[in-house]
Amino acid sequence: MDKQQMIESIRSGMPERRWQHVQGVISTAIVLAKRFGADPDKAELAAILHDLAKYWPVDRMEEAIREEGADLGILSYDKELWHAPAGAYISRRDYGVTDIEVLDSVRYHTSGRAGMTLLDKVVCLADYMEPGRDFPGVDGIRELAETDLDAALRAGFDSTIRFLLEKGKVIYPLTLAARNDLIRNP
Amino acid sequence: MDKQQMIESIRSGMPERRWQHVQGVISTAIVLAKRFGADPDKAELAAILHDLAKYWPVDRMEEAIREEGADLGILSYDKELWHAPAGAYISRRDYGVTDIEVLDSVRYHTSGRAGMTLLDKVVCLADYMEPGRDFPGVDGIRELAETDLDAALRAGFDSTIRFLLEKGKVIYPLTLAARNDLIRNP
Repeated sequence: MDKQQMIESIRSGMPERRWQHVQGVISTAIVLAKRFGADPDKAELAAILHDLAKYWPVDRMEEAIREEGADLGILSYDKELWHAPAGAYISRRDYGVTDIEVLDSVRYHTSGRAGMTLLDKVVCLADYMEPGRDFPGVDGIRELAETDLDAALRAGFDSTIRFLLEKGKVIYPLTLAARNDLIRNP
Repeated sequence: MDKQQMIESIRSGMPERRWQHVQGVISTAIVLAKRFGADPDKAELAAILHDLAKYWPVDRMEEAIREEGADLGILSYDKELWHAPAGAYISRRDYGVTDIEVLDSVRYHTSGRAGMTLLDKVVCLADYMEPGRDFPGVDGIRELAETDLDAALRAGFDSTIRFLLEKGKVIYPLTLAARNDLIRNP
């Protein structure tokens, strides 16, 4: 499958406004990759793929996660997280992507993880700050992203954790681990 | 060792203002135990013991933790957490306390844990809200504690996590696990 076919297939699986978000993540991920020394082609590919399962019915996401068998623990956390590992698995199974760096950056784009690669960070941060995003603190994240990838990403995780505290919702341990790791290993 | 000897020994190992805090935790823990159906004698004993290692030099706390060998992971987290497992171990080794419920409520009084016992909750909450405590949100915690042990404790953990976010400090995973568990298993 060439890139254009991949894009058409993924685009057809989501509402137009979500595709606009994906386009924002693509352009932002390429900029961030160039700025911080990640591979822009890998960043672009990961960004194209990252939300491919976002609008899947919950049971289809769960089926993909169970079929892969790698991230079953996530099934006891918020369904908002499921599209990321489901998307990584489907990227390999149905779109033929084999680059583990790209697949991992799709898998961890929502949660983060301890020991994030440069590409993980670029894709995750692009998802936080693409031009269509509007939440309290996003401008601060964009400002930090001009010069400091880790500080910007940490501000993103902080905003997620604050949001979940306010909503009284469970916080995914990997997000905490990602933030702790950024503080410990600057 | 009788209770009075234990109290004198522990009191002599800390500044007077910290002993006042311990007294506040004792009286609050007894009130909360009676209110929510925990054992007031166990709550009192755990409260007497809970901060026994608080003013120990860091290397003495570390030595106790390593000697016990149970909580080595905590050594890679903030030293503020160390007095809790060190205190639990010393409660058994030097004060002859064998009640695992009491020892565990000492061990987890700062961090919390998933699956907290009623006594764990009472001691941890008493430590948050004893009359000498003064931090943003403490009155809200006291108000919740009139009727809802879990909600009050969750508000305590939320305030800890918010504080650590603001300070840019690492968050101990067990505290997150404790909070998540209170949300999931109300």
